[in-house]
Amino acid sequence: MGDQRAPLYEAVMKYINQSPVRLHVPGHKGGEAFQERQSNQASLYGYSDFERILSLDVTELSGLDDLHEPTEAIREAQRLAADCFGAEETHFLIGGSTVGNIALILSACNPGDLILVQRNVHKSVIHALMLAEARAVFLPPRFDSVTGLPSSPDPAIIEQALHTYPQATAVFLTNPSYYGLGTDLSPIAALCHSLNKLLLVDEAHGAHYGFHQELPASAMQSGADAAVQSTHKMLTAMTMGAMLHVQGERIQRVKLKKILTMLQSSSPSYPILVSLDLARLWIQEHGSGSIHNAMLSLQQWRSDMASLERFELTVDHSSHSFYETKDPFKAAVRDRSGQLSGFQLKSALEELGCYPELADSEHVLLAFSLATSPEDLERLIYAFEQVKMRYPVDEKKELQAPVTNTNIAAYAQEISVPVPFSMRHIHTLVSEDSSYSIPIPLSRAAGHSSAEMVIPYPPGIPLLYPGEVITVEMAAYLQRLADSGASFQGVSDPALHTLQVLRDSQVDLFGKRE
Amino acid sequence: MGDQRAPLYEAVMKYINQSPVRLHVPGHKGGEAFQERQSNQASLYGYSDFERILSLDVTELSGLDDLHEPTEAIREAQRLAADCFGAEETHFLIGGSTVGNIALILSACNPGDLILVQRNVHKSVIHALMLAEARAVFLPPRFDSVTGLPSSPDPAIIEQALHTYPQATAVFLTNPSYYGLGTDLSPIAALCHSLNKLLLVDEAHGAHYGFHQELPASAMQSGADAAVQSTHKMLTAMTMGAMLHVQGERIQRVKLKKILTMLQSSSPSYPILVSLDLARLWIQEHGSGSIHNAMLSLQQWRSDMASLERFELTVDHSSHSFYETKDPFKAAVRDRSGQLSGFQLKSALEELGCYPELADSEHVLLAFSLATSPEDLERLIYAFEQVKMRYPVDEKKELQAPVTNTNIAAYAQEISVPVPFSMRHIHTLVSEDSSYSIPIPLSRAAGHSSAEMVIPYPPGIPLLYPGEVITVEMAAYLQRLADSGASFQGVSDPALHTLQVLRDSQVDLFGKRE
Repeated sequence: MGDQRAPLYEAVMKYINQSPVRLHVPGHKGGEAFQERQSNQASLYGYSDFERILSLDVTELSGLDDLHEPTEAIREAQRLAADCFGAEETHFLIGGSTVGNIALILSACNPGDLILVQRNVHKSVIHALMLAEARAVFLPPRFDSVTGLPSSPDPAIIEQALHTYPQATAVFLTNPSYYGLGTDLSPIAALCHSLNKLLLVDEAHGAHYGFHQELPASAMQSGADAAVQSTHKMLTAMTMGAMLHVQGERIQRVKLKKILTMLQSSSPSYPILVSLDLARLWIQEHGSGSIHNAMLSLQQWRSDMASLERFELTVDHSSHSFYETKDPFKAAVRDRSGQLSGFQLKSALEELGCYPELADSEHVLLAFSLATSPEDLERLIYAFEQVKMRYPVDEKKELQAPVTNTNIAAYAQEISVPVPFSMRHIHTLVSEDSSYSIPIPLSRAAGHSSAEMVIPYPPGIPLLYPGEVITVEMAAYLQRLADSGASFQGVSDPALHTLQVLRDSQVDLFGKRE
Repeated sequence: MGDQRAPLYEAVMKYINQSPVRLHVPGHKGGEAFQERQSNQASLYGYSDFERILSLDVTELSGLDDLHEPTEAIREAQRLAADCFGAEETHFLIGGSTVGNIALILSACNPGDLILVQRNVHKSVIHALMLAEARAVFLPPRFDSVTGLPSSPDPAIIEQALHTYPQATAVFLTNPSYYGLGTDLSPIAALCHSLNKLLLVDEAHGAHYGFHQELPASAMQSGADAAVQSTHKMLTAMTMGAMLHVQGERIQRVKLKKILTMLQSSSPSYPILVSLDLARLWIQEHGSGSIHNAMLSLQQWRSDMASLERFELTVDHSSHSFYETKDPFKAAVRDRSGQLSGFQLKSALEELGCYPELADSEHVLLAFSLATSPEDLERLIYAFEQVKMRYPVDEKKELQAPVTNTNIAAYAQEISVPVPFSMRHIHTLVSEDSSYSIPIPLSRAAGHSSAEMVIPYPPGIPLLYPGEVITVEMAAYLQRLADSGASFQGVSDPALHTLQVLRDSQVDLFGKRE
């Protein structure tokens, strides 16, 4: 063991090992609130799980540095992370990739600036566009013709948009997708840089990329100017622990740093910060071996799944026409017989103690990681066997045509016109005096402009933005999603019986369309 | 024990007790990444402290609710918190009071709206004004003539400002201050409501208020429309755990909820959320007794400090002319002899294992809590005795006139004109092409407009906002702060040898002043 293996962890432990008198926040005083002095047994209720971590739950004391102006342990931990993840500069985030995405957009866009944005982005990117008062041109993703799952936009589309909108400041992509699908970013980075545009990447789902020869390259390795990674999602940090990596001279780094200071808590969580430091150490020391072992286990699991026959690993067997990279730690599973929707399959697995990441109308998405054990995979196979037995294929049952993601493709195949975003969207649209919006049944929504952002969750990709006209296809698609049991964020009626639309916004869709 | 004592904790435990197969994020899989399977001893480095908490570090699964659309355990936990803290509705925050302050300002201000804001607010309020594109009228705090410590504005000043600016949407106050000083909010709430204005309160330092007859009333008890509390600061939640309490019909609740969804991570930390649930249970069950015991211990400590003679508990002995309420869990201590500045006294205590919350040029601020033990207070008295011996009063030493906070009073005694805030402040002012700002030595800064927000930290109160003219008094005060060892956030030169000012912004201060 060398010195400073995990400098932030070590700084915190140095503090704790003094048995300090804590005359500072937080008020639990290293967990002392729940020690035996508070002799009442009831006071310990729930806290045995927290006892150890509360000792590390410190604040920005002498020797523990300051996240917003790091000069000591946090700076050193960030420098080691930058080295490990191939960046020139790395910022630790304690608000998840959400805060990283918002900061990237705010740093790239002055009010009124135009940015090219993949349509299927995380809602945090849309919130960022509103806060930045930016104008977005949405780029259609490619959709798989079999599964309907979206991936990145076609590079030719990006190039076309860059030539149509030479004033664009940046291209913002999500790579990989929630389902682990992605594109080779290198030629896109080269294209952007040839036109002196930024390439910004939401790499929330790809913190493990680049750490093994069989994994796709990371955004940093591919030449992106900045990338946000959820270190908690596929690596080992605590939830909300994320990193923002930066390289090159195109990013305005001082501005970015100031924006992070605006958005992140002035009392950052040290357990989360320390977990970032330790996650970096862990992937650095164990990454390649752990990935290798986990991928071997997953190969076996995939082979076992194939022999069950009932279930299809859709992405594995897809045509590959719509994506170039695939994360082996994600699996999208559907019931080949059509008896169980994705939501039903998820419930059935949960009854057997196996909790998927999410369901859509057709699939469950399983998120494995480097920590997924062979024992867990055996339990999972057993669960699928049980589901197969409990829900036998009923040949007489009249199957509804499955609601597939392919429906999405209908409404988003072109480069959009610039959509001006503004905080006025929220200020006017959620106003409770109903002078701006009215609820109408979803069945009559086509032709109106949405007054809500409609986000089936997971995966949290907005299907409608405030001000966007609701097409006939979109209304039908939302109806089918609602019927199949999806839940919706961002809407006043989570069951989506009704949708808020802008008053007096109805247009004659049929008249307006060719 | 009744049912549902801590519904969110219980929901998480119910999940964990199934020994689930975790096919979801986070990637550490309940800490499995660090179990014996990863047999290499080195892989456990640092993780024994995290093991228990990682099991609870889950995500928004079935049965664990959704922070952004709560319908189950989180909603129930929030409802119990609302009951406990005297609110009609409570939102759990996982980004600290920072995110609560930003959400309150964004909910109260459309772009261009005018709001009355106490000058000595936390920087998050200023960031919120920028994001909201609001106009702020700053209200001067009252300053103690002895210590120079600031407290709340005079109610007569608030009334005057409300009549001068009838278009104001809200009054935003910080109560209590970092030093535990405050005002009686009840008449201010009545005043605001008589004019149909919102009263919004940053009560970050007062989460324990209202739980004992000898503590001041809380903002909710005093009639404020909304209050943000750092549950982690004076109660027992994990750091970044905070609450936003709401009552009455003036707040636009749907809008507020949407804004919180925009600002907070879509992967919220369950350890922090659960700690809020448990902190509510703890204060509910043990609050009054714990407060009583801790206040008795603190009385004894204050008496012991008095017998040391060397140190003054300044606020305790002040004239009380400038504040109406005082938090007994805060103590501002100064070296009566003037030998040690606040920063030096802080270092001396730290060498003895006692870590204060912060220092200013004159004081150290000690933050006790309900969890502060008699043993800790004994060690603290011993430390002060040691400091007294190690740094004897040198009668021959020529004392510099102490740098006191009273200097602050010089520059902020009047109601400001409306200051328009904008993200353009950050977009133009931190631009790295230096076309907007230039660094100049602090000694020559007077008369220029600041291009930086200058924040001595702690306590994090901005002394200069971007665009604000630097007065002679302010420049001198900043110089003395820098000389005495204060550190500064938000500036490009943390030592403050230089300050960024707007190009071509110099005005003739002497010509402009009467």
